[in-house]
Amino acid sequence: MASRTPPLTRHVVSINDLTNQEIEGIFDIAQRYLDELGDPNLDYRIAQSTDVGSKFILATLFYEPSTRTRLSFESAMLRLGGEIITSDDPAASSAKKGESLADTIRVISNYSDIIVIRHPRDGAAKLAAEYSPIPIINGGDGAHEHPTQTLCDLFTLTKKGKRTENNKKPRRLEGMKVAISGDLKGSRTIHSFVYALARFGAIIEPMPAAGMELPAHVDRRLREEFQSRTIAKNAQSGDDQIDVLYVTSDKPHQQSLFAGPEVVDYGVAIQKKVDAVYVTRFQKERYSEEKQAPYLKIDAKFMKDARYADASVMHPLPRVDELDVDLDTDRRAVYFQQAAYGVPIRMALITMLLNLKNKSLQKFNDGFAKPTYFVYRQPIDRGVRCINKNCISHEPSEQQYVANKFFVVPDTQPHGFRLRCLYCETDIEETATRDFVVTDTTKHTYTRGLEALHHAAPDKIKHLVICESETDAQKHGFRLNPGKVAKAS
Amino acid sequence: MASRTPPLTRHVVSINDLTNQEIEGIFDIAQRYLDELGDPNLDYRIAQSTDVGSKFILATLFYEPSTRTRLSFESAMLRLGGEIITSDDPAASSAKKGESLADTIRVISNYSDIIVIRHPRDGAAKLAAEYSPIPIINGGDGAHEHPTQTLCDLFTLTKKGKRTENNKKPRRLEGMKVAISGDLKGSRTIHSFVYALARFGAIIEPMPAAGMELPAHVDRRLREEFQSRTIAKNAQSGDDQIDVLYVTSDKPHQQSLFAGPEVVDYGVAIQKKVDAVYVTRFQKERYSEEKQAPYLKIDAKFMKDARYADASVMHPLPRVDELDVDLDTDRRAVYFQQAAYGVPIRMALITMLLNLKNKSLQKFNDGFAKPTYFVYRQPIDRGVRCINKNCISHEPSEQQYVANKFFVVPDTQPHGFRLRCLYCETDIEETATRDFVVTDTTKHTYTRGLEALHHAAPDKIKHLVICESETDAQKHGFRLNPGKVAKAS
Amino acid sequence: MASRTPPLTRHVVSINDLTNQEIEGIFDIAQRYLDELGDPNLDYRIAQSTDVGSKFILATLFYEPSTRTRLSFESAMLRLGGEIITSDDPAASSAKKGESLADTIRVISNYSDIIVIRHPRDGAAKLAAEYSPIPIINGGDGAHEHPTQTLCDLFTLTKKGKRTENNKKPRRLEGMKVAISGDLKGSRTIHSFVYALARFGAIIEPMPAAGMELPAHVDRRLREEFQSRTIAKNAQSGDDQIDVLYVTSDKPHQQSLFAGPEVVDYGVAIQKKVDAVYVTRFQKERYSEEKQAPYLKIDAKFMKDARYADASVMHPLPRVDELDVDLDTDRRAVYFQQAAYGVPIRMALITMLLNLKNKSLQKFNDGFAKPTYFVYRQPIDRGVRCINKNCISHEPSEQQYVANKFFVVPDTQPHGFRLRCLYCETDIEETATRDFVVTDTTKHTYTRGLEALHHAAPDKIKHLVICESETDAQKHGFRLNPGKVAKAS
Repeated sequence: MASRTPPLTRHVVSINDLTNQEIEGIFDIAQRYLDELGDPNLDYRIAQSTDVGSKFILATLFYEPSTRTRLSFESAMLRLGGEIITSDDPAASSAKKGESLADTIRVISNYSDIIVIRHPRDGAAKLAAEYSPIPIINGGDGAHEHPTQTLCDLFTLTKKGKRTENNKKPRRLEGMKVAISGDLKGSRTIHSFVYALARFGAIIEPMPAAGMELPAHVDRRLREEFQSRTIAKNAQSGDDQIDVLYVTSDKPHQQSLFAGPEVVDYGVAIQKKVDAVYVTRFQKERYSEEKQAPYLKIDAKFMKDARYADASVMHPLPRVDELDVDLDTDRRAVYFQQAAYGVPIRMALITMLLNLKNKSLQKFNDGFAKPTYFVYRQPIDRGVRCINKNCISHEPSEQQYVANKFFVVPDTQPHGFRLRCLYCETDIEETATRDFVVTDTTKHTYTRGLEALHHAAPDKIKHLVICESETDAQKHGFRLNPGKVAKAS
Repeated sequence: MASRTPPLTRHVVSINDLTNQEIEGIFDIAQRYLDELGDPNLDYRIAQSTDVGSKFILATLFYEPSTRTRLSFESAMLRLGGEIITSDDPAASSAKKGESLADTIRVISNYSDIIVIRHPRDGAAKLAAEYSPIPIINGGDGAHEHPTQTLCDLFTLTKKGKRTENNKKPRRLEGMKVAISGDLKGSRTIHSFVYALARFGAIIEPMPAAGMELPAHVDRRLREEFQSRTIAKNAQSGDDQIDVLYVTSDKPHQQSLFAGPEVVDYGVAIQKKVDAVYVTRFQKERYSEEKQAPYLKIDAKFMKDARYADASVMHPLPRVDELDVDLDTDRRAVYFQQAAYGVPIRMALITMLLNLKNKSLQKFNDGFAKPTYFVYRQPIDRGVRCINKNCISHEPSEQQYVANKFFVVPDTQPHGFRLRCLYCETDIEETATRDFVVTDTTKHTYTRGLEALHHAAPDKIKHLVICESETDAQKHGFRLNPGKVAKAS
Repeated sequence: MASRTPPLTRHVVSINDLTNQEIEGIFDIAQRYLDELGDPNLDYRIAQSTDVGSKFILATLFYEPSTRTRLSFESAMLRLGGEIITSDDPAASSAKKGESLADTIRVISNYSDIIVIRHPRDGAAKLAAEYSPIPIINGGDGAHEHPTQTLCDLFTLTKKGKRTENNKKPRRLEGMKVAISGDLKGSRTIHSFVYALARFGAIIEPMPAAGMELPAHVDRRLREEFQSRTIAKNAQSGDDQIDVLYVTSDKPHQQSLFAGPEVVDYGVAIQKKVDAVYVTRFQKERYSEEKQAPYLKIDAKFMKDARYADASVMHPLPRVDELDVDLDTDRRAVYFQQAAYGVPIRMALITMLLNLKNKSLQKFNDGFAKPTYFVYRQPIDRGVRCINKNCISHEPSEQQYVANKFFVVPDTQPHGFRLRCLYCETDIEETATRDFVVTDTTKHTYTRGLEALHHAAPDKIKHLVICESETDAQKHGFRLNPGKVAKAS
């Protein structure tokens, strides 16, 4: 099951696979393409194609229905002068014969030069990347991430909008205040977006529908890895619509841990007018139950509040009824530009991943201090598994191709660590019934907590398997190690 | 809801969006492409592509299944040297998430330079055109129209068929006699075709299956707008198979109204041999009931009648069993050429809509006096609505994007007008229970008939709402205006 | 129903439509493309396209789901610099309106220059070829054949695999020993493959799952037309896993008939180590019943047998669980290369069928003595029909376009002949209740056996109809011809 990835192939599975500097580089190239294509802000003249001399092939593998994202990638590739091959319902073709994603990727990577994948399972793009010798772009994987939408969103934020003639000079993202409304739990778009906002130093104001708050692990990463401090709002303001703000600390891009919510800079952050209201639809396909919670509708009345006087109205589209069509002609509405930017942004990303015109992601220094954690790895049938039932690691057709792979993340919990699935990035924390132990399968002993993994010798590590609880380990015949942990010999 | 259409963008939603002169211009360009590609009449040499130097992108948005029409558009675009992006089941993709056609069009128009749309709803292409800054071509909308098929059909009629070597010189459509057999009610192909035949002065001989006659509003437009006089046949001939002929008057292209069927030129028109028999399948997908009426089968025996001795046999395809395969080798069968002409005809249409090779529809004078009517417009929740339940104005996902828009068409009815839906072009006539009144929502009064609309001041017109009946208006608290109508102040 | 095929158009419906010399010619061109694209054996550098200056259009018509085969054809066409149009679910589009394959092909052949078809019915590609003026490539038709997969398979066999740097010099197929495991009955891939192996003089060792042996008519053709002698193994070896080997005789490519299995060259053939193990999945879509027979799983343990020490492991993919993923990193595993070769092989085939770069199949001498038989032809409603219920001749939508067409094949049966369907190539042998007679519809007489067909005068042949049995003929009022057969006058 060796990954065949050559050293220089880059994948974009998460927005965090790109450094801030790389993202700015993509925006720079996108702006040049936009100038050639014609900025949709300014006029509607028909775009001429931009042939950069390549005849590379982009394959779109969409295991979930999509028109917008797929066609924008295809348009981008064609505008670059490349070619496309498309499978927009692989679930009805090879998958019907029982084929795994891992095999499909290894085959299709011989037919194309770059692959965009969309999949209903969280973490599917990561699995695809593990098996692909050519660049994989995540076009949306379950409720996990949708990084290219975030690139469009950020690019839109850096533009002045409809209001000025000269929109060449980008706005700074740092200090910008972005309100995010709707289904923050099920929307992969939001997850990629908030990470990026935090990394660029923007203030995030969540306005979730009831029961659709940001997932706990996303909230936690914002605070612990992207240095966002949270401000409890209702304590001081009595405003019960908005509960919390995420504000990045003074020195962004450096990892730090926070014990819990702190109230800082309340005066400045809370009073700052909103720069953008980002609206998302209810992601009904991510929920098994039928009923939808009451949902805030963003309309002309809502936007009359002085706080939003200069706020751009954004939406990743498609919309259902959470965003009123009466705003379509409002000067603050930028959601159709946001969609239009999809082509130049994706042209720029493809350009850099395929090293067209001598542009390449490889040439950027790493300007984003992505936290690195110890990676635990065991076969799928050994020890603790991902708790997210929609994770690709639970897909029956992939059982031979996935493994139990977890980041071991420092934590303030009793034993000092939690696990994060390498595929879907869901956190597995200790609970009343889950008190991780590390079993040593050669000695039939176990130690409490995950500390043992960090001290194990390289040749011992393969024998150490995480078990969900002490009770569970005992049930399987392991006994508590009277000493401490397996030290390096 | 402002339409963003720039002034020079032309859409082809109805065959009546093109003037006669423009249609002839398209045929001229199509013939040149045909010469380059190889006429399918003459040989089967493999076609070489014709690169006109563009890299424009054609998007095909097919909300209804199709192989033939979609692939012929795509082939045409590729033969021109352009590129294609395709969504052949949008109903399963973005529409599944609840997206409206209006939003989809505004997004996809950023990814492409021209859009072909097929949709099960009558009038959907018109709605798309309202929201598109780039040219929309109607690839078939419900039972409404299919204008590019008509271009192929007319072009086929102008060709000599298989019989002669030199088919460069087109035949005149004027005075040609075309019999049309099958489902004249549900076939959008037929509706576009008969309008065009009438406009070019051809004689139309309907041979509908029982209960599948031309819709009343199509019949009416033929007689009233395209100056076709009807000839009652059975009165004189005793022929109970054919009831009526449509014959254009001496001075075509001038609007006139006829009180009813008149019998003119019986001798010439009825005795003229048929130049083409046009056969159509039963459009089962347009009917909710299961059963099919007895259907005339066109076969060798039928074609033995002396009236059809030199008649081309045409069919838009696909056929089911209304056209016998034994005719495939008959010298009069031209239906496969008709299909083959789909590529050069669509190449020519795209050429003119995209202004390729300096060809453009804009350069033609308006040679077709399309009747113009007063347009009434109110929000979808105010007043009378389209009576065609399959009209796009009744599509739940479009309720925020459509409006009650009607042409106010002069009529011989008691009150002198009827309405015609702007989207699906269905006529709404007065009946025993429908006696239109115009309500004035500021004064809570109403006037009988639609006359009041023509006399309203520009600043008053928005307060005038058509109500389906006097009873209905009274029920809503309006009282009869004692004066006449809202005059311009 | 005249076929419009011009003389020089070549179709590839069966692997037997290509001579051995032509196959070698394809491999030669494929190797040159592979050198340009980068051999997937050696590295993963991104392939640059190979523009040969054409802008031909390839149409893919897939009536059965597929990702792999369709995308590899499309990639091949694009790498050649051509264009593609795609219908990957025609069953949901024109077929839904009741259109026949015969009509679809005649239309699509006007939109493209070459067509790849996949269809669930055996023989569908043959029917398509009968109606197509442009080359048809069979992308898989029911359980019949899949010739381009076989080209990839043979090409893989001629390569040295991963083990050597220099894999330019092809290995000889003659004398190579190939074990074939799995569903040999339902796999069209296998049927094309074994014919080709026999023709090139390889030794075939079938290892079918229980009840999934090679179909009787395939076995028979191997022995009778491709000169394979069978070796009964278990008689001498006691090995009850492998029952038979197919070994070609000394003088291949000459037709001969064998009375039954003979035991020859046992010592050499049985002891020879296996050069390749070819694994296939259970073709569940070809069977109506649910349950699957026990299936041999090819894994590391199986491959430890000394007989397989140097055997390449092949699989046409997709795999389910008949091939263990642990072999993926085994040096003998070549199945991903096999898939990768799909692009250069299909580029080479398209090159020759479209006569690109002055390469053409027409320039090869016929190096393969394909047996020729008398062809019997009657309308579909007259006389004996194909016994394969999945044959395209039984498809309701094609009843007007197919005919009862059979090869009359010499046989050792009592009456000396059997029939073979021209479409699906299923043999119809005489049985206890099937004793073919030839009826003379003008004289109302019949003769026993099929001999009468060979002696009939050209003007009489159309009156001779094969009836399934003497009883059946008598039931329809025919009486035994007192003389012999209808002689040429």
